[in-house]
Amino acid sequence: MIMSSIKKTKSKIKTKSSLKPPKRKKENLSELRQDLISGDWVVIANSRGKRPDDFKTETKVSEKSSVESCLFCDPIASGQEKDVLIYNTADDDWSLRVFPNKYPAFTRPTGKIHHQTEGPYFWMDGLGYHEIVVTKDHFERIGTMENLKVAEIFDAFQTRYLDLMNKKSVRYIEIFHNQGKQAGASIFHPHSQLVAIPVISPYVKLELKGADRYYKTNKKCVFCDIIEWEMEEDERVIFENDKFIAICPFASRRAFEVWVLPKEHQPYFERMETEDKIQVGEALNEAVRKINTVLNDPDYNFYLHTSPCDGKDYPHYHWHIEILPKTSIWAGFELSTGIEISAIEPEKAAKSLREA
Amino acid sequence: MIMSSIKKTKSKIKTKSSLKPPKRKKENLSELRQDLISGDWVVIANSRGKRPDDFKTETKVSEKSSVESCLFCDPIASGQEKDVLIYNTADDDWSLRVFPNKYPAFTRPTGKIHHQTEGPYFWMDGLGYHEIVVTKDHFERIGTMENLKVAEIFDAFQTRYLDLMNKKSVRYIEIFHNQGKQAGASIFHPHSQLVAIPVISPYVKLELKGADRYYKTNKKCVFCDIIEWEMEEDERVIFENDKFIAICPFASRRAFEVWVLPKEHQPYFERMETEDKIQVGEALNEAVRKINTVLNDPDYNFYLHTSPCDGKDYPHYHWHIEILPKTSIWAGFELSTGIEISAIEPEKAAKSLREA
Repeated sequence: MIMSSIKKTKSKIKTKSSLKPPKRKKENLSELRQDLISGDWVVIANSRGKRPDDFKTETKVSEKSSVESCLFCDPIASGQEKDVLIYNTADDDWSLRVFPNKYPAFTRPTGKIHHQTEGPYFWMDGLGYHEIVVTKDHFERIGTMENLKVAEIFDAFQTRYLDLMNKKSVRYIEIFHNQGKQAGASIFHPHSQLVAIPVISPYVKLELKGADRYYKTNKKCVFCDIIEWEMEEDERVIFENDKFIAICPFASRRAFEVWVLPKEHQPYFERMETEDKIQVGEALNEAVRKINTVLNDPDYNFYLHTSPCDGKDYPHYHWHIEILPKTSIWAGFELSTGIEISAIEPEKAAKSLREA
Repeated sequence: MIMSSIKKTKSKIKTKSSLKPPKRKKENLSELRQDLISGDWVVIANSRGKRPDDFKTETKVSEKSSVESCLFCDPIASGQEKDVLIYNTADDDWSLRVFPNKYPAFTRPTGKIHHQTEGPYFWMDGLGYHEIVVTKDHFERIGTMENLKVAEIFDAFQTRYLDLMNKKSVRYIEIFHNQGKQAGASIFHPHSQLVAIPVISPYVKLELKGADRYYKTNKKCVFCDIIEWEMEEDERVIFENDKFIAICPFASRRAFEVWVLPKEHQPYFERMETEDKIQVGEALNEAVRKINTVLNDPDYNFYLHTSPCDGKDYPHYHWHIEILPKTSIWAGFELSTGIEISAIEPEKAAKSLREA
């Protein structure tokens, strides 16, 4: 179904005048939307009739742990691993540091990766690198900090990425951020993570394939076409500056999902210029601030999707950030099908976020 | 990566004597295991050093709603939709009923499905059927009821499936069960759901492709080979009767994940015989009882994967049930990569479940 329907979407970007007005606007009719890149389906469950306010987080008892017992306020005192990167302030304090995760999901390599079969099965050593990026302040999060501080986080991502990508058997580096317990953060102190792994992840693989398929038909980057269309339509854009744009994607998997993309075609995150880092810092900060305002500081995850670092070229991919507020629970339907149900139209979500 | 590694797993089932002893048993080394069917990767995060007891649900304040305010104890009085199926007991009470969901994710069809493009995007009406299967007792769950009552639930699944599969534009029917709030159940009273949709879900698509690929190489059903291997090894089997087997899959995505499969090759769930329903009832009931014992009544989801009902043949697929206890939260890494992290070896999980 994925492949056969993709064929139906060979349409190129048309000028606005050549298009009929969208017929999508039937109230209370659920929609199945197809992700243009992965080919996956999502359900926009309009029939459930939810409004933006229905997704607000209830005012909750603060989960903040005390500064005294925090593992990341003073990483050396709390026995964290030795820093691999540290940024200092003018007054000789630290502002950001990166150190290996003490409880990594992947084991740090000391030798070659073993590939093994066991009966009909296949497995390999789970070797990789797992690092934590911590900003100094216990309470100051993305969405409330200065734009330049977010730019500094991206500078750290890039610095660590450039080091890890050259390590043996690293084929993909995942950069992500969990905000709040429901989003899987076990430590309150704001932090991001880098995980360098020996396989290309299934989701990125799917996007790479989709981008290639689209390029073959349309001779353009699918992300560039999306950006062009969204800027023209201006219905799902929530923020933009010179170099970055933030949108609620057409086939949002989650209510209030937001993507932040470089406007120019950039396959490789790690090749960002200084000005890019400043502007992506602003765009991400603004996007999260808007989500916090509309949804009352929800828990959320964001992550970065970029081209693999396996030595091959990926000229048709386009790196970007995806922000997923915790507005729903994956239940039996989603777990079984891989089809997510978003209970609000992305256009309505975008309107609230744009105005926030 | 998925495709290239799959090629490495062309091995057929070998007799035990021809195999070297598995070299997998390095303590505290994480592993990347590949799902033989989908080709997806999972991480067995041994480096986190968790033991079975670490996954126990803490004793929690009961979430049970009162019988008086329950929407499903008396569905007619609470204004649910009209039954499409009802089973009565000998003393003229009801034991199970099925009715359309009042708040369906998919809109019930009244006409043809519209397929539309919008700029570069593709979407269609989200038309489908969404039904609820309710057993009478407010407290009696799968895992605590008589085996024959679970068989009755499967009889209802089959009856509704056979009706829905012939409706226009239904291509796949998803059957699932959410137990507990954290697993997405919004109503306490035990219930399952059927959702009939106009697309084949991405995950089932992936399994169908994987099964075909395996068949082409090995001339055997991949699920049949897995069952044969697991019965011979007896390391991940947790229960079996004449017709069904319950195992912790080699590439478990979740700690304590369990699959229940018919031992004989059966592509189509809806063709089950009476004896199959009795035996799958026992196998599912036992599997859930064991999970409840070991993990202290955790929230969980289970769902059924079977061949699509789109008029095509799927001779190499093999229907089965997957049970996913809520032992972790999908955080940034899983959301971004599609690679799940299971913090215990399936062999250890299977040992606790087998002995429960």
